[in-house]
Amino acid sequence: MPNNIQSKQFITQLLSQLIEKPSVSPNDCGCQEILINHLEKLGFVIERMPFGEVSNFWAVLETKNPGPTLVFSGHTDVVPTGNEADWTYPPFTPTVVGDLIYGRGTADMKGSIAAMMLAADTFTKSSHFKRGRLAFLITSDEEDKAIDGTQKVVEVLRSRNEQVDYCVVGEPSSRDMLGDVVKNGRRGSLTGNLKVNGVQGHVAYPHLAKNPVHLALAALDELTHEVWDDGNAFFPATSFQIANVNAGTGSPNVIPGEMLVQFNFRFGTELTVDLIKFRVTEILDKYKFDYDLDWWLSGLPFLTADGHLVEAVSNSVTEFIGLTPMLETTGGTSDGRFIATLGTQVVEIGPINEMIHKVDEHVSLNDLVTLNKIYNSIMKSILG
Amino acid sequence: MPNNIQSKQFITQLLSQLIEKPSVSPNDCGCQEILINHLEKLGFVIERMPFGEVSNFWAVLETKNPGPTLVFSGHTDVVPTGNEADWTYPPFTPTVVGDLIYGRGTADMKGSIAAMMLAADTFTKSSHFKRGRLAFLITSDEEDKAIDGTQKVVEVLRSRNEQVDYCVVGEPSSRDMLGDVVKNGRRGSLTGNLKVNGVQGHVAYPHLAKNPVHLALAALDELTHEVWDDGNAFFPATSFQIANVNAGTGSPNVIPGEMLVQFNFRFGTELTVDLIKFRVTEILDKYKFDYDLDWWLSGLPFLTADGHLVEAVSNSVTEFIGLTPMLETTGGTSDGRFIATLGTQVVEIGPINEMIHKVDEHVSLNDLVTLNKIYNSIMKSILG
Repeated sequence: MPNNIQSKQFITQLLSQLIEKPSVSPNDCGCQEILINHLEKLGFVIERMPFGEVSNFWAVLETKNPGPTLVFSGHTDVVPTGNEADWTYPPFTPTVVGDLIYGRGTADMKGSIAAMMLAADTFTKSSHFKRGRLAFLITSDEEDKAIDGTQKVVEVLRSRNEQVDYCVVGEPSSRDMLGDVVKNGRRGSLTGNLKVNGVQGHVAYPHLAKNPVHLALAALDELTHEVWDDGNAFFPATSFQIANVNAGTGSPNVIPGEMLVQFNFRFGTELTVDLIKFRVTEILDKYKFDYDLDWWLSGLPFLTADGHLVEAVSNSVTEFIGLTPMLETTGGTSDGRFIATLGTQVVEIGPINEMIHKVDEHVSLNDLVTLNKIYNSIMKSILG
Repeated sequence: MPNNIQSKQFITQLLSQLIEKPSVSPNDCGCQEILINHLEKLGFVIERMPFGEVSNFWAVLETKNPGPTLVFSGHTDVVPTGNEADWTYPPFTPTVVGDLIYGRGTADMKGSIAAMMLAADTFTKSSHFKRGRLAFLITSDEEDKAIDGTQKVVEVLRSRNEQVDYCVVGEPSSRDMLGDVVKNGRRGSLTGNLKVNGVQGHVAYPHLAKNPVHLALAALDELTHEVWDDGNAFFPATSFQIANVNAGTGSPNVIPGEMLVQFNFRFGTELTVDLIKFRVTEILDKYKFDYDLDWWLSGLPFLTADGHLVEAVSNSVTEFIGLTPMLETTGGTSDGRFIATLGTQVVEIGPINEMIHKVDEHVSLNDLVTLNKIYNSIMKSILG
């Protein structure tokens, strides 16, 4: 095992190389070749899987002994910087200030990737790597459309019946201190596109028109007040939010002919997609207006309630940080939703998420060293 | 008096000249010079009053005897044609088919203007023109913004204390047959621009955001169900219509930070602007959300309940058509709202409005001949 100073050097050097690449989604800007270079030296077999503009790779190192496959999942892309002048330090110039390293993507999630690389380096060179396979699934489009990224790689893996038993996603799951929160699932996301059909007309002749806004207000209000479920031990209550509303020609004299409403559900395992659709339709139909409704499912909820991986993650957090992590399923989606469809146990553990997507994004180097130890410990538990 | 054939020839010739000018608001395209040429020959004193892009003129012919001022109000501008390929005949090529003449603006309101010109021609050359003043107020922006048109001319007239006793507006007031409906007033128009202030956020973290759509739906629903008044003998019930609604970033993952709602009142003399504002604010405040509300008054209601002009118009309709017109205040606004502020009695009478603003707009030439007789008869009643 490298000591803490060596570990910090390794992570700082690798993370700095990654920060220097302005890899705004879906551009990888060469980050993945840096990682591939490291992994090839460790003996990993690399499969580059580009789709469209998106760079992805799948890397596997196999022992001689049968055993489970443990995959580490990460993304090299970052969100845009916003106005660079607002940053204290340039977002694509790695800047170390005390224990902190600044730069876009440090917390989400180039820092986690550097920690994974060090853990893999240490683990695969050690005598602890006894059975099964250690793998990496890295994409350059998690932050944007996420269509040609992990989802596509997972389809390839599914088509050749690859066994993927356990997955650690490096998303920044921690709230106030490293390891205080681990995500053992995520809610599903279902979007409804509602078109309320009225009849356009002049405001001076309302009897000749049918105002779609007037028709739908009460129904929409009922949807916002509906209690969809009360959540359960693993998931918070399902939430409904109207994200977009548009009606009207721009003129104050014209009654609009239609209203477009886009709403989004974040739902847990208490509800199914079909049940949500049924209940929305039931509420809308009560108000007897004409509408069209299209749905878009961007991810089903997934949950790794318990099992070997949750136990391994929890134990290693306790070992290196001295606390028992909270298991949560709140927050946005992640690439975990795609990997979970392979029947994989998925857990997300990474740095504190307070600064992600913000100006002056930064991460603690000491936290990354500890995160590397946690990742290493998980590898030992699963593949040792 | 010219006979019907001569009248039809005069109107067809003048109206054709006007149709040929593609005078889409606020362009006059030379229409007014044609009218000025006619009126100057009759002895009218012309004042051209251009404001910005808008052409306007004020023309007066005075007798030696004191008496009232009767003004005919009209506009030379027309609404756009839409796709010209949808027209059976080219919109700016006058086309006579039987009794009908086709072209943009035939019904709204170049036809009325041609009828007014013939009536003025006949009347001012006759021995019936005994007292007072006959005037014309013509603009090229009634259909669009209507800021630099009649409103500005009226301000000039007001500033020099011009007495304007009676006004006939040539707007197409008739519903099923010429003269069946006469407008003796119009409702006021008041627009509210509501901004509902929320807090933007990610749909996955609704507790950190405040959805302005959710906040306002119930209040908006109540506004649509409110009975503002029951109307009165002259005005229909006040109507409230939401014309525009906009909220959201376009993304299904973002809770909008604000919602913009534009609504419009068409109101009669049962309500005041202040009372409407008070009642709207009272309803909004019940729901305890943060908002900004701006108001735009585009016209107060006006009414010529009875008097010499209404009587003259009604009698002349009865004389030439054999029916008693309905007096109505429904429909959109007109330039009458500006003229009425001079203390003027205002009545609108013009052709059938079924085809206005539509493809294949047309008007009956026989109706225009009859309309000329009605206008002539009104001149006789007031100035005879």
